[in-house]
Amino acid sequence: MDYTKKYAAEAIGTFWLTFAGCGSAVIAAGFPQVGIGLVGVSLAFGLSVVTMAYAIGHISGCHLNPAVTVGLAAGGRFPTGQILPYVIAQVVGAIVAAALLYVIANGAPGFDVTKGFASNGYGTHSPGQYGMVVCFLTEVVMTMMFLFIIMGATHGRAPAGFAPLAIGLALVMIHLVSIPVTNTSVNPARSTGPALFVGGWALAQLWLFWVAPLIGGALGGVIYRWLSEEPSGVVAGVKTA
Amino acid sequence: MDYTKKYAAEAIGTFWLTFAGCGSAVIAAGFPQVGIGLVGVSLAFGLSVVTMAYAIGHISGCHLNPAVTVGLAAGGRFPTGQILPYVIAQVVGAIVAAALLYVIANGAPGFDVTKGFASNGYGTHSPGQYGMVVCFLTEVVMTMMFLFIIMGATHGRAPAGFAPLAIGLALVMIHLVSIPVTNTSVNPARSTGPALFVGGWALAQLWLFWVAPLIGGALGGVIYRWLSEEPSGVVAGVKTA
Amino acid sequence: MDYTKKYAAEAIGTFWLTFAGCGSAVIAAGFPQVGIGLVGVSLAFGLSVVTMAYAIGHISGCHLNPAVTVGLAAGGRFPTGQILPYVIAQVVGAIVAAALLYVIANGAPGFDVTKGFASNGYGTHSPGQYGMVVCFLTEVVMTMMFLFIIMGATHGRAPAGFAPLAIGLALVMIHLVSIPVTNTSVNPARSTGPALFVGGWALAQLWLFWVAPLIGGALGGVIYRWLSEEPSGVVAGVKTA
Amino acid sequence: MDYTKKYAAEAIGTFWLTFAGCGSAVIAAGFPQVGIGLVGVSLAFGLSVVTMAYAIGHISGCHLNPAVTVGLAAGGRFPTGQILPYVIAQVVGAIVAAALLYVIANGAPGFDVTKGFASNGYGTHSPGQYGMVVCFLTEVVMTMMFLFIIMGATHGRAPAGFAPLAIGLALVMIHLVSIPVTNTSVNPARSTGPALFVGGWALAQLWLFWVAPLIGGALGGVIYRWLSEEPSGVVAGVKTA
Repeated sequence: MDYTKKYAAEAIGTFWLTFAGCGSAVIAAGFPQVGIGLVGVSLAFGLSVVTMAYAIGHISGCHLNPAVTVGLAAGGRFPTGQILPYVIAQVVGAIVAAALLYVIANGAPGFDVTKGFASNGYGTHSPGQYGMVVCFLTEVVMTMMFLFIIMGATHGRAPAGFAPLAIGLALVMIHLVSIPVTNTSVNPARSTGPALFVGGWALAQLWLFWVAPLIGGALGGVIYRWLSEEPSGVVAGVKTA
Repeated sequence: MDYTKKYAAEAIGTFWLTFAGCGSAVIAAGFPQVGIGLVGVSLAFGLSVVTMAYAIGHISGCHLNPAVTVGLAAGGRFPTGQILPYVIAQVVGAIVAAALLYVIANGAPGFDVTKGFASNGYGTHSPGQYGMVVCFLTEVVMTMMFLFIIMGATHGRAPAGFAPLAIGLALVMIHLVSIPVTNTSVNPARSTGPALFVGGWALAQLWLFWVAPLIGGALGGVIYRWLSEEPSGVVAGVKTA
Repeated sequence: MDYTKKYAAEAIGTFWLTFAGCGSAVIAAGFPQVGIGLVGVSLAFGLSVVTMAYAIGHISGCHLNPAVTVGLAAGGRFPTGQILPYVIAQVVGAIVAAALLYVIANGAPGFDVTKGFASNGYGTHSPGQYGMVVCFLTEVVMTMMFLFIIMGATHGRAPAGFAPLAIGLALVMIHLVSIPVTNTSVNPARSTGPALFVGGWALAQLWLFWVAPLIGGALGGVIYRWLSEEPSGVVAGVKTA
Repeated sequence: MDYTKKYAAEAIGTFWLTFAGCGSAVIAAGFPQVGIGLVGVSLAFGLSVVTMAYAIGHISGCHLNPAVTVGLAAGGRFPTGQILPYVIAQVVGAIVAAALLYVIANGAPGFDVTKGFASNGYGTHSPGQYGMVVCFLTEVVMTMMFLFIIMGATHGRAPAGFAPLAIGLALVMIHLVSIPVTNTSVNPARSTGPALFVGGWALAQLWLFWVAPLIGGALGGVIYRWLSEEPSGVVAGVKTA
């Protein structure tokens, strides 16, 4: 298949993840009395992956996340030469999503982008005031387990067709636990979009949300590869994520 | 199969979406202390599509929504000559649903239809006071992504049988984000039913919830069609939505 | 297969539905600050059907509900001669469930069975004070749509294996809408168990939660049968519910 | 397959269940205003099983729980000679999870491990002050039904591929009902991890969360085995849990 279309699919998919995930947090989480809270935000992020994986998994593999692309490459499931264009497409999609969300959020009275705009942060910018080292550790572990599940659910011996559910529900779980810690990234593209609009501290802390997820993702890919004894270099094994 | 039965299936299915979706909002969202909130309303709308798509997908395709019918036609998956009867059946189903919900809601003390009755609105009738332009934009983008996912999940290369889940969960997500903006339509039939009972402003604003979803739906169908390089005119490819 | 085992499966499955569904309401719905609310209760009822349908669908069909048994018979999917033993097994399972729940709930300080014990009711015993006629209507419509979805999702042309999800999620939806109206029955067995322990008004109002669901179930079975043009008398077509 | 890798898979999977499940309770359940509550905690525990069962079900069977291992053995689905190494791997995974969670939770101001750290307890240490006998009974019944569903959903006549969903959603349900009673164990490994860090009463009460789940699990395995008339000694029938 045409590579341009793979990149377009990744950009559109990451747009959806960032727009709907961050959008649920900015627009609906704290809505008076009936707001969706952290359960709703967790569902929105996870379901964006479930829905997109069924829609474009057969086109691009539906990574939507630089840590997934790097982790799958580390696990021998994705060609290293395609990492860079995939990551660029993902970041472009996330930035467009943040721009659109900024426009929409500005359409209501009282919007203030400096309140966070769903940015990720640590220390005084962690929702629960968690320190930097612990935030780094949390992002590494969460992304590692995310890639472990992705590698396993798309393995040839796993039940066919269920990988999008398993992977999206893993993202729900990760958010259910770690929003109070870092506002949950495990995805450098998703972190970059909002940070560009918040600026200041969000940009200054953005490094952590690239470094930690990429390390975690690579670890997860390598650990699962060992566990399942996949022969190295298998790329065709990627099914839906 | 008999076309009358396809229309009946669309009417019953849209009845279910409107009755259960709007019903959850009117009856249960704000119930004291244990109310279902916007998470519960989002689930009710989305699960109405999951459940009906498994029940009648094999009969009518389970559109339940004029924007879906138009979007699938724009994407080359549905015959244009069937658009009008499908849309009529959907609107009839939604109106019957609103009528029944009106009767039931009136069975409790203190019901007041002018409080909104789950109608969609913009400006001062937006739940979060979002302006008209932003509401229009939100409905276009949300319906566009909805059709994109529908086209993808029902594509011949997507895992068979999962499309109802993917599509219904996409509707959950859309509601998780955008209820505060427009009370979430993405479905002109669902908007029309309650508006007839609220009257006044709800009818005056109803145009937006026809125009924006139809534009968005057509865009989504066309974009996915380009992305997946479907040959034009394929109708048999419609599987469950 | 041995009929005794089918009856045992129905009794165990209805025990699970009643114990977990009503138990979630009695024990966890109103727990201070972090209680599960009506969303949690809706999930508990629905997931009891999802889980049991995968566990015993291949043994008994997993009806767990006299209205389902009667509705499937009305739809030509279940032999009328088996209705009575199925219903007896379901009611026995529900009564044992209510007894066990009574023992457990009594293990905490301050339990008071007269507060309702998850009983269904109308008028002054409706959670939202809905009148009798409207409660009757709601139970008929909800059970009718429930059977419509059950008939459709277990139809031979629906995707194989997904019926338990579709049916259980339909029960989630029904609860999301109608708990404030009747505390949601759509299942005479589930209503009978708690009513025996509450006594008084709960027993006096129990008739409605037999009559309305049975009428609704039969209607749903007949309507879907017409829609799908099933030849009458087909019994082997029952797959999972 | 190499047995070392089965044990590694069980350790990693039980790590995930304990870390994410207990982590959601410790970090996010009571977060001010938007906390996930008991619904979110229930989802986190259950989804840990859904996600891991798709990822490692084809490696180790994904028990993640001594009561599951013992129950499957009692049901004739697992070789008794492998019980001990499986249980050791599960307990090791749970202890590592509790240690990591301790480190992360300590990274926020005001953390106090003596507040419970997601430990299971009865009597004055039951969240809802339920007495010991009732707590014991609840754990037996819940684990019995859990194993009943596991045995059924992995039976050769159940729809292929859905067992992880059925089993994980059963764990969601169990938590929706019984967190107020015992904080919900049904899993001795999950109970042991946090208890080691809380010490004192949590260790003194730990016996119940080994004895009751193991009895319940064995009962569930035996009952389903009778119901489904499996020939004894079948081990190859284990599919995903």
